Amino acid sequence: MADPNPSRRNETSRRAVLTATLDLLQEVPYARLSIEGIASRAGVGKQTIYRWWPSKAAVLFDAFLLLSEAAEGEAPVLPDSGDLRADLTAVLRATVAELDDARLAEPMRALATEVAHDASLAEAYHRQLDAPLRAAKRRRLEAAQAAGEVAADVDLDVAIDIIWGPLLTRWLQRSGPIDDRFVDALVATAMDGLRPR
Amino acid sequence: MADPNPSRRNETSRRAVLTATLDLLQEVPYARLSIEGIASRAGVGKQTIYRWWPSKAAVLFDAFLLLSEAAEGEAPVLPDSGDLRADLTAVLRATVAELDDARLAEPMRALATEVAHDASLAEAYHRQLDAPLRAAKRRRLEAAQAAGEVAADVDLDVAIDIIWGPLLTRWLQRSGPIDDRFVDALVATAMDGLRPR
Repeated sequence: MADPNPSRRNETSRRAVLTATLDLLQEVPYARLSIEGIASRAGVGKQTIYRWWPSKAAVLFDAFLLLSEAAEGEAPVLPDSGDLRADLTAVLRATVAELDDARLAEPMRALATEVAHDASLAEAYHRQLDAPLRAAKRRRLEAAQAAGEVAADVDLDVAIDIIWGPLLTRWLQRSGPIDDRFVDALVATAMDGLRPR
Repeated sequence: MADPNPSRRNETSRRAVLTATLDLLQEVPYARLSIEGIASRAGVGKQTIYRWWPSKAAVLFDAFLLLSEAAEGEAPVLPDSGDLRADLTAVLRATVAELDDARLAEPMRALATEVAHDASLAEAYHRQLDAPLRAAKRRRLEAAQAAGEVAADVDLDVAIDIIWGPLLTRWLQRSGPIDDRFVDALVATAMDGLRPR
């Protein structure tokens, strides 16, 4: 029987739509995911989805927010053992393991490519999803800078890109193996640089 | 009047389709580009396109090959002035300028996102389009290694990712400014590493 409380009923439908979106992304590629398909799986009318979300990308974005909320609960923090190399290695190895989990990887891949094509979605993505993560990375590098593990004149935004950019590129562009060996070489090269010491 | 030579006529139609694809990408986002739209602009039947290409992504890929052929003609080479930092700065600044050119940037963005979602397209992309470029980057870094500008134990594939990955990431994910200042900080950080000297 339908819940008699309309706002609770709305929330139930909203969650059903987002969960259906995540479920379907395990079965069909994002390009073939349709609003009709999501509505049918969620047991809601197509018009319900069109009323709440302007596009398939917007549904995906909210589904991803739901996924992040479930995974986190509070603001992300990078480990700080006092050894930046060890901490970066642990964090990147954990990310590599996550990318093997299709439940997380397929929506991430879809979102990354929607962000590439949609400047306003990109803005929402960076503000709501990426900013807390980027702030956590920055805080860890600031602590390393204070501890003398990172040179004082390093631009930390560029440092973040140099550490995480190559992993994202290999994953999205399928341009090379992503494994622990890659992570180790990435951390060593980012820390030591290309030139001889 | 139609060319009486069928293979020349086919080549004319093929080029018309690829040029129409590149032209339309200046006007509509890739997601709204349709085979019908391309056929209409190229003055060919829709069936002609379906006969030669299995998908919109395959048309895009060949359009990109045509663009690369026009731009290059021969195998790419990176400048070698004997100063790796100066050469990388020049090459990356030139890439940044290219990304401002919508004629090149829109197909590149579309291709990068198709590659993210299609493993067999990714394979063709790396073999036909990216491999010659990656080989040129590798040759330049090998020369720098021989000249003592790059440490002997650096993994050059990782070095390539550390130099070019952050630029690609910022561009595709719209995660930060892409300008000469970014290029300079990127080259300095990649060469010197994060840790103090």
